[in-house]
Amino acid sequence: MATLAARAAKLDAADELGAKREEFVLDDTIYLDGNSLGALPKAVQARVAEVVTHEWGTLRIRSWEESGWWTAPERIGNRIAPLVGAAEDQIVVGDSTSVNVFKALVAAVRIARGGTDDAHPDEGRDEIVVDATTFPTDGYIAESAARMTGCRLIPVAPADTPSVLGPRTAAVLLNHADYRTGRLHDLPGLTAAGHAAGALMVWDLCHTAGALPVGLDAHGVDLAVGCTYKYLNGGPGSPAYLYVRKEHQARFDSPLPGWNGHAQPFGMRPEFTPAEGAVRGRVGTPDILSMLALEAALGVWDGVSVEAVRAKSLALTDFFLECVEAYVPKGRVEPVTPAAHTERGSQVALRCADAGEVMRRLIAQGVVGDFREPDVLRFGFTPLYVSFAEAERAARVLAHTLAGA
Amino acid sequence: MATLAARAAKLDAADELGAKREEFVLDDTIYLDGNSLGALPKAVQARVAEVVTHEWGTLRIRSWEESGWWTAPERIGNRIAPLVGAAEDQIVVGDSTSVNVFKALVAAVRIARGGTDDAHPDEGRDEIVVDATTFPTDGYIAESAARMTGCRLIPVAPADTPSVLGPRTAAVLLNHADYRTGRLHDLPGLTAAGHAAGALMVWDLCHTAGALPVGLDAHGVDLAVGCTYKYLNGGPGSPAYLYVRKEHQARFDSPLPGWNGHAQPFGMRPEFTPAEGAVRGRVGTPDILSMLALEAALGVWDGVSVEAVRAKSLALTDFFLECVEAYVPKGRVEPVTPAAHTERGSQVALRCADAGEVMRRLIAQGVVGDFREPDVLRFGFTPLYVSFAEAERAARVLAHTLAGA
Repeated sequence: MATLAARAAKLDAADELGAKREEFVLDDTIYLDGNSLGALPKAVQARVAEVVTHEWGTLRIRSWEESGWWTAPERIGNRIAPLVGAAEDQIVVGDSTSVNVFKALVAAVRIARGGTDDAHPDEGRDEIVVDATTFPTDGYIAESAARMTGCRLIPVAPADTPSVLGPRTAAVLLNHADYRTGRLHDLPGLTAAGHAAGALMVWDLCHTAGALPVGLDAHGVDLAVGCTYKYLNGGPGSPAYLYVRKEHQARFDSPLPGWNGHAQPFGMRPEFTPAEGAVRGRVGTPDILSMLALEAALGVWDGVSVEAVRAKSLALTDFFLECVEAYVPKGRVEPVTPAAHTERGSQVALRCADAGEVMRRLIAQGVVGDFREPDVLRFGFTPLYVSFAEAERAARVLAHTLAGA
Repeated sequence: MATLAARAAKLDAADELGAKREEFVLDDTIYLDGNSLGALPKAVQARVAEVVTHEWGTLRIRSWEESGWWTAPERIGNRIAPLVGAAEDQIVVGDSTSVNVFKALVAAVRIARGGTDDAHPDEGRDEIVVDATTFPTDGYIAESAARMTGCRLIPVAPADTPSVLGPRTAAVLLNHADYRTGRLHDLPGLTAAGHAAGALMVWDLCHTAGALPVGLDAHGVDLAVGCTYKYLNGGPGSPAYLYVRKEHQARFDSPLPGWNGHAQPFGMRPEFTPAEGAVRGRVGTPDILSMLALEAALGVWDGVSVEAVRAKSLALTDFFLECVEAYVPKGRVEPVTPAAHTERGSQVALRCADAGEVMRRLIAQGVVGDFREPDVLRFGFTPLYVSFAEAERAARVLAHTLAGA
């Protein structure tokens, strides 16, 4: 044990992101659940108090203009953009991931069809392909999008996507990383395959944004969505975002054309004329408290390169897997997260027969991961605040817990 | 002037809601824009700080259970219920008003049709009637709901609704009060007319919830939506709500079936099985900061009857209109808010040729209302914190401003 602990100390000493930890509220808990809810960035507390007391309490209605509330969705979108490899003015923040999946998929089908009426679809493209292993909400919403656009839904394991693509494929919705196993899917390759079939590619970035380079622009992704409360640390239920590639913006035809996406939102016109750009992806009045908390939280990314985050993420998960291998009795857990770096997100999932009970005991000992049905222990590694020493200690507590169980 | 000012002082002295003002953060500004963004209830500040620092910062992921985050949408729905005349378990909070209008209208069409597929609608009921004078977002979303369910959209002035109802009407969406004129529509009568035609009635309560009794249950309303940042003082962009009448809940078939509305949200099942009750109207992860700020804001309603609020609202708007009549030179402004109590919400709208410029000057003098295109001065009267003295002073400043303009 001494050897791994000593190596952890060395790795931490050399960690160029090590100082970032100071920007978060943390304690003795080893928090490996940042892939579910990111820790609190210290700057959020003062900022939220200012928004409530000064901007709402004192300026009140004037803040929509004077405090920049009205333009927050696109301003914060531009703040997220470099983290996912997007140039400016392609991301708007707002609504939940589920709602954005609906907007993105319906709009993708409409673009793929060239604008045919939903209730009278042509027979050309009438299939939506969806990740069968996805976080379920994407599948539920995809089913609704299919139903409402006259499409058939085709669930498929992401790697098998190319085998179901064809001239009838309108849109494909895939997760960049699997929420349960932590497997990273081949975004560049699958995007290219979808395009070769003439389909639009929609990616869900919930488990990768803020953990590794995504390269939306570079890989030609058409539309994307993601939450902001995992690796982006925006707070519980902080608003999600929608990416609309520049070249599709003029044809982005939202199924939720709310007044915030209107070219003249205060013109109060009876007809909907969509705004130029990604702003047309906005719907109703943005939830300002949650949104400005997110904006403050994004300050931790100042001076951080996503490449450095990715390098540390892989080093952390490699090291944790090594510690588990060294400490945990053989056969007691089985890693389901791929060993290959190209197939790994920023979490480690271990299959374990009594995973629910084991996770309860871990949490009671201050090692916080989570349990996912039916038998997965999930440990998320947020490179901005998790240390190698914590990875080593977590593996040690896990081994101890399993030995005692 | 002395007479009206003296009357104002008397009315304030006798005001049983007068003490409520102390529960809000207010200053010398005469704030008559609570129909756009309600003032800050004092209790919100400490509560939001606790949510950020303790619940998110310290408990982190545990708060979904331990701090009651997960059940907040239905818990807060039950808090709003008595304010709109609804028994428990029919309201969920979350998403924006626009998104809830989409859920409600699509679900209403599906119920009216008995579950026919959207992309292959039967010919029975294929019309959605919508308030042509509505706040535009309702019309935009209604158009999308019509397009996606194979319906024709029929805009109509609310009072003329009965003339367009028929065997093809699936659903009707009306505003309870007009956002511009402040006119209150006949919810009981129009709901009965819709039902007589076999249609489902959806009401938008943005401009009435918290200002007057709505009586959703009593009048047989089928579905309703509303925002919480006007007379409910929930804060900028605080989440909206959705009412699903008990008897329709089992057939409520959401176009946005997100994982939060699943019977077993953590079962991670590939098929969507809706939860029992109004909870099936939930979609994605709720925006907890905005939502718990709203919950704290609703504390101001403790011990307040909506009937008392309505009585004061009518007294305030009557008195303001009287002061305007007394102070403002004849012909300079024209009230567009009806004089009849049964036709008045909780705002006074005055038509005025140079309304935009007049409102800018009023705001510069500390009388905050708002301007609505093309020529309306809008003054909202929130009975919980606006006094008769303020109504009198506002009219005086308005008269002075118009004399000098």
